[in-house]
Amino acid sequence: MSIEADFTQGFVRNHWYAAAWVAELGERPFPRTILEDRIVLFRQPDGTLGALEDRCPHRLAPLSMGECADGGLRCGYHGMVFDATGKCIGIPGQDIIPPTAKVRAYPVVEKYGLAWVWTGLGAPDHGKLPQVPGYGEAGWSILDGGYQHHAGNYRIEIENLMDPAHTTFLHKETIGNRAAKDVPVKTTQDDKGLSAFRWIENVPPSPLDQKSRDFGDTRVDRRIAFNFELPATSFVDIAVIPSGMERSEENLMHGGLRTFSYKFLTPETAGSTHFFWLHLRSFRQGDSDFEAVLRASLEKTFTEDNEMVAAIQKEQEATGLRQRTALAIDRAPIMALRMIDRLIAAENTVGEAA
Amino acid sequence: MSIEADFTQGFVRNHWYAAAWVAELGERPFPRTILEDRIVLFRQPDGTLGALEDRCPHRLAPLSMGECADGGLRCGYHGMVFDATGKCIGIPGQDIIPPTAKVRAYPVVEKYGLAWVWTGLGAPDHGKLPQVPGYGEAGWSILDGGYQHHAGNYRIEIENLMDPAHTTFLHKETIGNRAAKDVPVKTTQDDKGLSAFRWIENVPPSPLDQKSRDFGDTRVDRRIAFNFELPATSFVDIAVIPSGMERSEENLMHGGLRTFSYKFLTPETAGSTHFFWLHLRSFRQGDSDFEAVLRASLEKTFTEDNEMVAAIQKEQEATGLRQRTALAIDRAPIMALRMIDRLIAAENTVGEAA
Amino acid sequence: MSIEADFTQGFVRNHWYAAAWVAELGERPFPRTILEDRIVLFRQPDGTLGALEDRCPHRLAPLSMGECADGGLRCGYHGMVFDATGKCIGIPGQDIIPPTAKVRAYPVVEKYGLAWVWTGLGAPDHGKLPQVPGYGEAGWSILDGGYQHHAGNYRIEIENLMDPAHTTFLHKETIGNRAAKDVPVKTTQDDKGLSAFRWIENVPPSPLDQKSRDFGDTRVDRRIAFNFELPATSFVDIAVIPSGMERSEENLMHGGLRTFSYKFLTPETAGSTHFFWLHLRSFRQGDSDFEAVLRASLEKTFTEDNEMVAAIQKEQEATGLRQRTALAIDRAPIMALRMIDRLIAAENTVGEAA
Repeated sequence: MSIEADFTQGFVRNHWYAAAWVAELGERPFPRTILEDRIVLFRQPDGTLGALEDRCPHRLAPLSMGECADGGLRCGYHGMVFDATGKCIGIPGQDIIPPTAKVRAYPVVEKYGLAWVWTGLGAPDHGKLPQVPGYGEAGWSILDGGYQHHAGNYRIEIENLMDPAHTTFLHKETIGNRAAKDVPVKTTQDDKGLSAFRWIENVPPSPLDQKSRDFGDTRVDRRIAFNFELPATSFVDIAVIPSGMERSEENLMHGGLRTFSYKFLTPETAGSTHFFWLHLRSFRQGDSDFEAVLRASLEKTFTEDNEMVAAIQKEQEATGLRQRTALAIDRAPIMALRMIDRLIAAENTVGEAA
Repeated sequence: MSIEADFTQGFVRNHWYAAAWVAELGERPFPRTILEDRIVLFRQPDGTLGALEDRCPHRLAPLSMGECADGGLRCGYHGMVFDATGKCIGIPGQDIIPPTAKVRAYPVVEKYGLAWVWTGLGAPDHGKLPQVPGYGEAGWSILDGGYQHHAGNYRIEIENLMDPAHTTFLHKETIGNRAAKDVPVKTTQDDKGLSAFRWIENVPPSPLDQKSRDFGDTRVDRRIAFNFELPATSFVDIAVIPSGMERSEENLMHGGLRTFSYKFLTPETAGSTHFFWLHLRSFRQGDSDFEAVLRASLEKTFTEDNEMVAAIQKEQEATGLRQRTALAIDRAPIMALRMIDRLIAAENTVGEAA
Repeated sequence: MSIEADFTQGFVRNHWYAAAWVAELGERPFPRTILEDRIVLFRQPDGTLGALEDRCPHRLAPLSMGECADGGLRCGYHGMVFDATGKCIGIPGQDIIPPTAKVRAYPVVEKYGLAWVWTGLGAPDHGKLPQVPGYGEAGWSILDGGYQHHAGNYRIEIENLMDPAHTTFLHKETIGNRAAKDVPVKTTQDDKGLSAFRWIENVPPSPLDQKSRDFGDTRVDRRIAFNFELPATSFVDIAVIPSGMERSEENLMHGGLRTFSYKFLTPETAGSTHFFWLHLRSFRQGDSDFEAVLRASLEKTFTEDNEMVAAIQKEQEATGLRQRTALAIDRAPIMALRMIDRLIAAENTVGEAA
């Protein structure tokens, strides 16, 4: 068998993608390439965000080399000013504004500390913004601001994130668990995504578990659900409870350790991805020493992911292939990729009909 | 509207281009790529310069890896020696010199501290060497040796240099002047180039003006002429006089501040340019502190130009476009580009006829 | 005349190529690209070497990112284990091993401190392993471990190594000898390679000769043979004896200085080569100060070769040409290249017939 490389399969466009942490956005305009579009984020005079094509229509100067000034985003070359609808509202030395003096505008909203950009051509669907349970609620601590630039296509990232099996080997120094390597995974699917989960039963707590809560000599049961939300969100939900405890929702939430680990993937190009991570936990609140350890552990884990993803991206480019053999563990990742394929196909069909 | 990118439009070849400052040329042969030709400059035994294709005809070793020796330029691989006409005059271990043992020679002259290379295939026209008024004359101070490598096509550079409007925004910390942003430009043209100039009247002296001469509370009139000389020379002529002073040639030259700022652009490739600058002034002669300030200010300004030019080069490459809208300020730059187009077309027509 | 560039002419595949010094191979798998094949070397549980395609058939992860574990080479992504025949012998979480779960295996042997890989598709011919006279014998000192990465096609390397004439100019600070520049070269050929040699007679000992042995005021005769062994081995044999001494085999071996200098070239890509060098000498045994001087001198010489080879590679790529003129000194290099051409053509003919 031989499956062709699929990093060239394009993007789902009618969605909100994380473009930047709001904390990244200062007074200066901020450039970020998303779905191969060069986009600039900027603050409007009223304090709300704008997002425009990062390319002045005059001589193609990146607008991100300009400034927030004169009531909009001012080009750093000849001072043309654009508002957040993409309309030119001022040209120094010239009264008439030609109708061609405009740039593409992207809908943008702030939520969960992130700036989200709608990359579709039609009206944005606010119902499609990701939902993060626990965010801002009492009893939950948030680690945010996490960003890595990954050198692989978002599809390779999704395969990685929907694949519990790799943690034993790739992340053996952080979250890997040798005991888990032969535990099967159950997969469920709905129209918004899918979930691959497994119970790992009656195992000693991991070093990180032990640091998170003193389990003493107690063994634990651990449920990990790897959730995929279309088109490019990974949500890993981890519950650790003392082995044998009843698996009620209440116990899963408060009987041990509960973690929600989000990764919002934003395709940059066919071969690179913006990797935003957001981590919520129900334990060790306000413990900044623990948070430093946790952040370092997560950064190390995601760096390992990136090293693998980048290597696979190179091999796909070099060989034009994706796989030469298939394994049982491919089930959930392949299901996720098929869902993306269908969404892209649907968008293209609509495009052809229009 | 949508104008295609033009960085692929080629070069005017029948001209002298600045290849190097003479001060850059030591005992070692000196390589520089000009109009995509790899050229090596070297000193002949009589002290005059030679310029050859930088590629030995034997195994294509760069002759610039060799030495000035044995009566010419000696290849560093097998010791073949070439004179400044490109003829091989010695092969170690071999008496017969094959007729194919030759390289292309380029006419080269020294003037204004620069080595100028004629890139045409026909006889060089010495009348086409740039003229620099004031150079070497009493009453003028020279800043020379200025060189930057710019990451854009020479046409993007010329648009930049023929465009007074950008200084307000791109160079706001050095030569920019907010007051100037709405002052119109007049353009005149002859068969050798064109001039875009404007008077900015009754304004306070700029910080640099004030450093250059104590104007006290006097306001000034400033005339800036942006001159273009085919195919790739920019000459900015700046006169600053006390506001209201009669605008006689005598007053413009000696009544205040007069500056001649030359940029000799030498295309390296379709996407890069050698930027040689030469600056003459009628004031603050022999003031080395002032010269250091002036040199730093000019270097900063040209670095800003390069950042913009490089960004635009990338956008032209990425989009295949040059502009999506046109402004009034494009008039002089577009006239300059049209003159270049006509010269290239004329050269190609001659080439086809020959 | 004009000869086309030949760096695109491919490789002789049915041969043993040096892949790594054994000293480079530790507990971790070791990746090296050979003849454009990505290969990983690793230690099997029994201590012998294995060599596999460096690409897991599952998701193309480089196996060199994995570990020597579980009885073979274990992929660092999902833990699939391969033995040295390329067969998958274990998949975590899965009992059935699909027939597609396999990678290409390369025959590999250790000899002369190097790991040699057979890149042909058929059975390896152990008779084709290089022979190094003197290796491991009394009276000979070995300098080994020499490796450089060279940025040129192996054919440009071979031209360089079969070409005594260049040493005068390229290596004038180490092994070059101005007196040698006009001494002709004799060439002999058999079906395994060729030899270009010359006697340089009655010359003062070189600085390195003088450091190697105190010749006092005696002049010397020096025989240098540049040997080429198909497909990519250079063996330079240097004998230095007091001028006028009888040229018997005994005297050449023990009457003065005798050096065997091997370079094992392994094509990496069409534009780069692994350069392994091995140096044997009959003098100054056990003199570590002298060895340090010798190693530095050799490294400098080979670095000079690489600079030239890399420059020529670039010129061949830029021009599509190899030469514009031919010299008498091209005789031996051209003969070597023709032998390689014939071997590649023969391999391709066999391939077509099969």
